[in-house]
Amino acid sequence: MGDPAGSRTQISRVPERGVTDRSAIEAVLDEGLIAHVGLVAGEGEAAHPVVIPMLYARQDDQLLLHGSPASRLLRTAKSGVEVCVTVTLLDGLVLARSAMHHSMNYRSVVVFGTATEVTDWDEKVSALDQLTDHVIPGRMAALRPHTDKEVRGTTVLSLPLGECSMKARTGPPVDDAEDMYADVWAGVLPLVVAACAPEPDSLMDPRDVPEQVAAWSRGAV
Amino acid sequence: MGDPAGSRTQISRVPERGVTDRSAIEAVLDEGLIAHVGLVAGEGEAAHPVVIPMLYARQDDQLLLHGSPASRLLRTAKSGVEVCVTVTLLDGLVLARSAMHHSMNYRSVVVFGTATEVTDWDEKVSALDQLTDHVIPGRMAALRPHTDKEVRGTTVLSLPLGECSMKARTGPPVDDAEDMYADVWAGVLPLVVAACAPEPDSLMDPRDVPEQVAAWSRGAV
Repeated sequence: MGDPAGSRTQISRVPERGVTDRSAIEAVLDEGLIAHVGLVAGEGEAAHPVVIPMLYARQDDQLLLHGSPASRLLRTAKSGVEVCVTVTLLDGLVLARSAMHHSMNYRSVVVFGTATEVTDWDEKVSALDQLTDHVIPGRMAALRPHTDKEVRGTTVLSLPLGECSMKARTGPPVDDAEDMYADVWAGVLPLVVAACAPEPDSLMDPRDVPEQVAAWSRGAV
Repeated sequence: MGDPAGSRTQISRVPERGVTDRSAIEAVLDEGLIAHVGLVAGEGEAAHPVVIPMLYARQDDQLLLHGSPASRLLRTAKSGVEVCVTVTLLDGLVLARSAMHHSMNYRSVVVFGTATEVTDWDEKVSALDQLTDHVIPGRMAALRPHTDKEVRGTTVLSLPLGECSMKARTGPPVDDAEDMYADVWAGVLPLVVAACAPEPDSLMDPRDVPEQVAAWSRGAV
């Protein structure tokens, strides 16, 4: 699907899959639920890459991460090391007439940069709100505000979206001419992230499922 | 959701989320469709992490990656540098009574190691078969065999599953006692990767959608 960027955000392989439209990049970040956060752990001979899945949110031109102050990933990331955060949406299986031309339809955004800790109280509260509402829009309005202890007990990092790139593949398979009349089904099997029936907590009084849960969807579902 | 491993595969944060059962690890790798492959690109001061989404497959105790010989990621990976490959399955949104306790149900496998190129012809053909059948089981049987040119024109890397770890969260939200009677819906919204109606290639003669496409599903759908 992709390659590490040469000048980092320059798409080297299959450059026609590069997308530079800022609104397309933001749409991917707003639709995704999980980011894969990469950094270099250890030093010298022991240096090695680590890739960890995390919740995230976009707020304007920043990507937000959060977690426990004890999190080794967040402690490392906020120390000023470079991170690479990748969000990938899988849109479909591309089934060609040969194995060689099988592929995926996808949209993927890669962000390079250095994260900084959000320490301003109001900014931090706003970031925590956004981290919840990113996953399930409208949820914060249904919840009590964060307590001071919760805000103090959470680390929030902010990564600027300055250095980012996007790749995407769309459309039908592209087959070799000599395979076009092969006796095999070819096309795209679209994929979505879909919600199943909500499972109420057993300790909860029976009540209607609220709109922000019942109507939750992501992308083109 | 997680942290970089300390002794790499040791789960440091929320250790009760660690899963050591080998069959559970293999089940995650067999259900996943995309791996996020991380490595350190550049050297010295310019060294930085890169995380790229890729198709993959599991074959016995190896994780297979493939792509164009021109792929910078594969060229870097096969040079013997360490990689970190992470596969994450998102099983549900965990909606608690406070924002603080919102979470995700997920299963995630992290593999550390050094990839080697698969050069033996038969092993390479078998790996290419597996890379297709991983995405859509039974597909290879419907396709013509790979041509020699296709096999030569693809780079296949193999990463041993020797050093890997798994984390998972399952079950309902865990709330603070003082929130238990809050007037808010709490529970889990299960998520799945679901296939929509297949979209036949427009250049194809009309024909029935074969079983391997029509019945495609992943996980507990």
